Amino acid sequence: MPVKLAAPDPASLHPVAGVELGWTEAGIRKANRKDLVVIRIAPGASVAGVFTQNRFCAAPVQVCREQLAAGGEVRALVINTGCANAGTGATGLAAARATCAELARRLGCASTQVLPFSTGVIMEPLPLERLLAGLPAAIARLAPDQWLAAAESIMTTDTVPKAASLRVDVGAATVTITGIAKGAGMIRPDMATMLGFIATDAGVAPSLWRRLVRQVADSSFNRITVDGDTSTNDSFVMIATGRAGVRIEDDRDPRLPALTDALTRVAQQLAQAIVRDGEGATKFIEIEVREARTPGEAAQVAYSVAHSPLVKTAFFASDPNLGRILAAVGKAGVADLDQNRVQLWLGDVRVARDGGRHPDYREDDGQRVMKADEIRVRVMLGRGDAVATVWTCDLSHDYVSINADYRS
Amino acid sequence: MPVKLAAPDPASLHPVAGVELGWTEAGIRKANRKDLVVIRIAPGASVAGVFTQNRFCAAPVQVCREQLAAGGEVRALVINTGCANAGTGATGLAAARATCAELARRLGCASTQVLPFSTGVIMEPLPLERLLAGLPAAIARLAPDQWLAAAESIMTTDTVPKAASLRVDVGAATVTITGIAKGAGMIRPDMATMLGFIATDAGVAPSLWRRLVRQVADSSFNRITVDGDTSTNDSFVMIATGRAGVRIEDDRDPRLPALTDALTRVAQQLAQAIVRDGEGATKFIEIEVREARTPGEAAQVAYSVAHSPLVKTAFFASDPNLGRILAAVGKAGVADLDQNRVQLWLGDVRVARDGGRHPDYREDDGQRVMKADEIRVRVMLGRGDAVATVWTCDLSHDYVSINADYRS
Repeated sequence: MPVKLAAPDPASLHPVAGVELGWTEAGIRKANRKDLVVIRIAPGASVAGVFTQNRFCAAPVQVCREQLAAGGEVRALVINTGCANAGTGATGLAAARATCAELARRLGCASTQVLPFSTGVIMEPLPLERLLAGLPAAIARLAPDQWLAAAESIMTTDTVPKAASLRVDVGAATVTITGIAKGAGMIRPDMATMLGFIATDAGVAPSLWRRLVRQVADSSFNRITVDGDTSTNDSFVMIATGRAGVRIEDDRDPRLPALTDALTRVAQQLAQAIVRDGEGATKFIEIEVREARTPGEAAQVAYSVAHSPLVKTAFFASDPNLGRILAAVGKAGVADLDQNRVQLWLGDVRVARDGGRHPDYREDDGQRVMKADEIRVRVMLGRGDAVATVWTCDLSHDYVSINADYRS
Repeated sequence: MPVKLAAPDPASLHPVAGVELGWTEAGIRKANRKDLVVIRIAPGASVAGVFTQNRFCAAPVQVCREQLAAGGEVRALVINTGCANAGTGATGLAAARATCAELARRLGCASTQVLPFSTGVIMEPLPLERLLAGLPAAIARLAPDQWLAAAESIMTTDTVPKAASLRVDVGAATVTITGIAKGAGMIRPDMATMLGFIATDAGVAPSLWRRLVRQVADSSFNRITVDGDTSTNDSFVMIATGRAGVRIEDDRDPRLPALTDALTRVAQQLAQAIVRDGEGATKFIEIEVREARTPGEAAQVAYSVAHSPLVKTAFFASDPNLGRILAAVGKAGVADLDQNRVQLWLGDVRVARDGGRHPDYREDDGQRVMKADEIRVRVMLGRGDAVATVWTCDLSHDYVSINADYRS
């Protein structure tokens, strides 16, 4: 059951000039389900991406990195679900390259202008023939208004398609930003998430765009976790087509903050949708760590809380067994943390200070906050002024069921 | 359901000359259950301990560290279950000290010669009056043959009391080693486990004994994990009474390896018992990482596999979804790991090499190994010759149930 998350209204997803999407049912893993997406990008766009730090990164991730590093103009993306093409060795790399070559041939561009993406089961061979056979049908459907269908086509254990869209004024022009993402388990993105794509019709210089994709990822997809398992296939790509009549050349442009803010809002909405639809999730939890020495230290403590199975099961049970949060703060690896300076809040309730329970804390108050669908945890470390926020979900019976049954 | 673990036969637990144990039902948290233990140690023993690295370490852990650092001769231990006395601030520290003072008064030693230990719920005040009121009954029962009852008295979510005992020849003398431990959840000891105590009648010089306790912990309790949650109360203490007519003064003594080996065997048996009785465990899993650059790197990869919820749920389901193991190896944080040099074995089955599935791998073979109660995973990194072994269990519905209900 996703936490306060419904499928987006297709009418709310604005087309982005210069981007067309097509899909088909290629039978990659199962019959009769959308599992293959092609995204065609008009000439002149800036395209940048960030990818998983998992050393067992998938074959398509390796190919994406190569193509982007080579610096050619990206003209198409191809995405399959049902098979991750990860842990597949040289055969998998050849299959990812063959996918790019075949799509390039059909679209009339170079193979190096196509980026491939895969998601699904690891260490199984990509059914290349079925994938290639599906390309013509996906290409035939290419259209600007297929964002929702594309979001549906990249789902695995997701129960809700994830898409978000925004129109904002950037200087004199109105700019559109639309994006899709997928992911519900194996979610602890480290540079990006398990497949996120955002496009805008704003124009941005390529070098600036490469910095922006990292910045946006760091405050959205890189701040969520479901189970701490960084995927082999995490990929987040942003496309700037430049069709809206606004072009930003460098970071002194006064219109940049408005665009960055809007991109970040769309990315955070997608990232939070992944957590709300986290495998087995019944609660959406925001963990904010304040007064850390550095942002990295704040994030380290926030993740320690977000990954603790004991904290997550207490949330599932709506049980204010909040000493578990202190234990998770204490095991985060901050060697000189002084427990007597730590404060803990749950929503608007003061829980702990001076190394122990707050004198005003009443279990009824903790219970009230724990029962809600959305819970905010705040930890003050008393060491500095750095902050980090991480979004996560609880650990329920359904997480175990889903992952015990995923392949069957 | 513990995995191949039964309550020890009381007759198998040899008394250790110089050590007496007593217990009572003090009503710390619940009525009618053993929850308080006193261990009296004869004069002249070497006592050393290692404690949690969690920065929210419990009040008794803080007191233990102080007393051991002060270097006085330890004459007694006092252990309660039902309340961790962690996250309790200055009040908790005062309660731990008051416990030591009262026991010292009754045993006729100094307060600084008593070490306190607690386990149970975090951030709740220690019911000091009930604890102190229970001391006379525990003292009245002091006897050398109460190891099993003591093991029962320190259980929390444990379903089986954990005790192990061994007699070995060390030079011309026969030496006895007996120990107890507790723990089932919040288990990822970092220096020691959630309460482990081992005594021997061998004699060992104090400075050597302090090194030995660390060495034994590092190859036993510091190599297990249930849920990755390092407890606030982890404490592991070894007692050498010197009553067996053998005394080892330094590490050139040729009898030291036999004693170290026997201590390690007892400690590993206790540590593995904790995993076999891990909350909700249905499988006992040994993860051996070989060919790492350093032992630390090997352990880091082994823990990454052992902590992955996706790997653990696959074990629960007996599903050879083994790509999840590769993903966990890849996310372990070994920045320059080459996936093409990694090999994966499951029991006697070759699963992966050259970055992908082994050509001889058949799913039926993987399935056969996954169905067993005890499973051995071997990962070769192809980077060096360092090795580490970690023991863990699977993640089942019962883990969620137990931790959603723990306080109720």
